[in-house]
Amino acid sequence: MKVGIASTGLTKFSKDDISIESLMVSSIKPVFENASNLEQKDIDVVLTSTNANDKYLANIVSELSGISPKVAHSVESLCNSGTNCLVSAYAYISSGLAKTALVVGAEKTDSPGLVLEWDKSRGQYKHPIYWSSIFTQAYMRKYGTTMEDLAYVSAKNHRNALDNPNAYFNRTYSVEEIMQSKFLTENIRLLDCSMPCNGAAAILLASEEVISRFTDKPIWITGIGQKATSAGFTKNNDLSSMQSTISSVVDAYDMSKKQPSDIDVAELHDAFSICEMIELEDLGLVDRGKSMSYVKQLYDTSDRKINPRGGLIGSGHPLGATGVAQTIEIFNQLQGDAGKRQINGAKTGMVHNMSAAGTSSTVLILES
Amino acid sequence: MKVGIASTGLTKFSKDDISIESLMVSSIKPVFENASNLEQKDIDVVLTSTNANDKYLANIVSELSGISPKVAHSVESLCNSGTNCLVSAYAYISSGLAKTALVVGAEKTDSPGLVLEWDKSRGQYKHPIYWSSIFTQAYMRKYGTTMEDLAYVSAKNHRNALDNPNAYFNRTYSVEEIMQSKFLTENIRLLDCSMPCNGAAAILLASEEVISRFTDKPIWITGIGQKATSAGFTKNNDLSSMQSTISSVVDAYDMSKKQPSDIDVAELHDAFSICEMIELEDLGLVDRGKSMSYVKQLYDTSDRKINPRGGLIGSGHPLGATGVAQTIEIFNQLQGDAGKRQINGAKTGMVHNMSAAGTSSTVLILES
Repeated sequence: MKVGIASTGLTKFSKDDISIESLMVSSIKPVFENASNLEQKDIDVVLTSTNANDKYLANIVSELSGISPKVAHSVESLCNSGTNCLVSAYAYISSGLAKTALVVGAEKTDSPGLVLEWDKSRGQYKHPIYWSSIFTQAYMRKYGTTMEDLAYVSAKNHRNALDNPNAYFNRTYSVEEIMQSKFLTENIRLLDCSMPCNGAAAILLASEEVISRFTDKPIWITGIGQKATSAGFTKNNDLSSMQSTISSVVDAYDMSKKQPSDIDVAELHDAFSICEMIELEDLGLVDRGKSMSYVKQLYDTSDRKINPRGGLIGSGHPLGATGVAQTIEIFNQLQGDAGKRQINGAKTGMVHNMSAAGTSSTVLILES
Repeated sequence: MKVGIASTGLTKFSKDDISIESLMVSSIKPVFENASNLEQKDIDVVLTSTNANDKYLANIVSELSGISPKVAHSVESLCNSGTNCLVSAYAYISSGLAKTALVVGAEKTDSPGLVLEWDKSRGQYKHPIYWSSIFTQAYMRKYGTTMEDLAYVSAKNHRNALDNPNAYFNRTYSVEEIMQSKFLTENIRLLDCSMPCNGAAAILLASEEVISRFTDKPIWITGIGQKATSAGFTKNNDLSSMQSTISSVVDAYDMSKKQPSDIDVAELHDAFSICEMIELEDLGLVDRGKSMSYVKQLYDTSDRKINPRGGLIGSGHPLGATGVAQTIEIFNQLQGDAGKRQINGAKTGMVHNMSAAGTSSTVLILES
C-alpha cells in the first residue's frame, strides 16, 4: 500500500511563550485548511512528537482539535522524534490498520531533550555542543577544514531562511560576521549552532486508496531507512562520519530504488555547521572530504538544493517539530509550491534527521 | 503478513528501588533466554513504553542489551502505553518495514503518569481515584451495586495473583477484609485500588516468515481495536460504560472474526474494582448489569477466566509495563504454559487496556 503526504501545517518558529498544546493545535488547523474535504472523522491515527514531559498529549490535542482517532500516542527519540513519528504513521497505514494518520511535532525552548542528562559518563559535558566539537575536531584533522569553511554552512542556511516566513531567523550573516561570533567551544562559534525555539509542524499521511479525496498533488514516501547504532557516541568508530546515517541512507535508496544523483533537494539535520558537512558525505551526496568546496559552491551560486528552508541553523530547532518541518519543506518543493525557495523541477527529495551525535538517524525519500 | 509473539520477559513487580533502565534490561534478558536462536542482530525495532520523563530510553536499553535496531523510540499514552506500543510494533512488521520488534514497558512508583496533571479543570481532583469514584456512583445508581459486590473483584484478583510469582501482592484478602479497608472516597476502599509499583515486561513480535526460528509455539495477534474518544472523561455520555472500549472491541472482533463466546481467557484493566465490572459488559463478555453476579460466580467456582494473573489489583500496576504484562499472561495461557493459573484448553484470549477514565482503549485478540 503506497503512503503519501496529503496536507501539512506549520507555525512560526519563535520564542513567544505559547503552550505546547496551543502550538500543536495551531499546526493542525492549517492541515484542515490546506486539504480538500478533510473532516475530523477522517483521521484514524494521531501521533505527537515531542521531548516535553507532558503526558497524554496526543489525546489532548485530538480533543482540542475535535478528532477522535483510533490510535493516539506520543513518540520520543530526542531530535529524531518527528521522523520516527512519520515512519510509525507510515507503518499504520501501510499495514492496513489505518487509512490516514496525523503527525504533530512540537517543542518549546525549555525542552528537557536539549541536554543529554541520561549520559552520566559525560560529566558536565552533556550539551550536544561538546560532541559536535569532537566531531568538528576529527573532521578538521582529517580534511584540513577551517573555521571559514564551517561558516559557509551557517551563512548559506541563514540566507536560505530569509525566504522562509516561518523561520526563527530573518536576517543574513556574512561569513565574516559568523567568524566574529563568540567561540562556545574551541572550534564551534555561536553562529555555527542551531537555535532551540518554540514551534510546531503537522503532516497528514494517507493511503493511496483515499489520498485523492484530500489533495490532487500527493507526495509519496518511497524510501525509508532508520538505524540506531547506540545511545552513547563513543561507539562510533569514526568521528568524521555518522554510521547510523550511512546505514539509513543505504536502506532508503534501496527501498526507493534511487541513488544520490536522483536527489533534487534535501533537508539535512544541521544542528551544528559540522553536521551538514559530515552528512552530505554520509548520504552520498558529496564525495568524502569535498563538503567544504561543495558548500562554498552552493553559497556562491545561491543554489538552495541543501536545506532550502534554512535548515536548523536558519529556521530554528524545536526538537520534536524539526523532522516534521523538514519533511514539510520537501513536500512543498516537490509540489512546486515552495515560493522563492523553489528548486525548479524538483521531483525527488530527501529528509535526513538524527539524534545525539548521530547515534540514530532516519532518512526519507519522497517523490512527486 | 501475520504477526505473532515469539518470546517474552517479565520482572517481579515490587517497590524495590531499581532504575528504569535496569528494569527494562532485566525484562529483555529472559526474552533471549526464552527464545531459540535469538541473537541481538535479529531485532529490527525496539520500542519502549513508559510514562517516565527519561529521554532516549529505547536507544539506551538497546545499547545496554547489545541491540542496534533500525527503529528505536519511546511511546506514551498513560496506562495504555504498553498496548499502543504493541500495536505500533505490529504495524512495523505487518507493513513489511521490519521482521521483528521488541516492545519493552517499564514504570516506577513515582511515575508522572499517575496523576492527570494536564487536566486543569479537575482542580485538586487529579488522581484517577476521583473519576473511578464517579463511575462507581453511576454504576451503583443504575444497577444497585453494593460495596460487597465490588469487593468480590478484589478478592478474586488477589487470590488469582497468589499463583503469579511476579505479582506485587502474594496474599489473599477475604471479602470481609476488603470491606473493612479504608475508604479513600465515599465508594472506593483502599483494597479496591490497584497498586502503583516498579516493574518491566518485554515481548518480541515477529513476522510469520521468521517466527519459527525463535519458537515452535507462536501466538498470533489476530484482532486489534483502538479508540481515543477524548482526553477528559466528561465527554463520555454514560458513566456506567467506556465508549472507547466498546468501539475498540467491535473492531477487534471484526478483524479477528471472533465473538464474545470465543474468548477463553481475558486480561482486563482493573485499575479499580469498578473498572472490571464495567469492562466485562463493554467487551460483550457479560450482559449489562450482570457483572456483579458473574464476578461472584467466578470467585465462588475459582474460575480464573478473567484476570488469571491477578489483574492490576493483584499484580500491581507499573503503568508502562501493564499492557505488555497483560499480553504476556494471555501468551502464556494460549501456549498452555501458565502453570497453576492455566485455563484448560485456552485457544483464544483477549487483552483490554485503557487510559484515564477509559478515554482511550486498546483491545487485542490473540490465538494459538
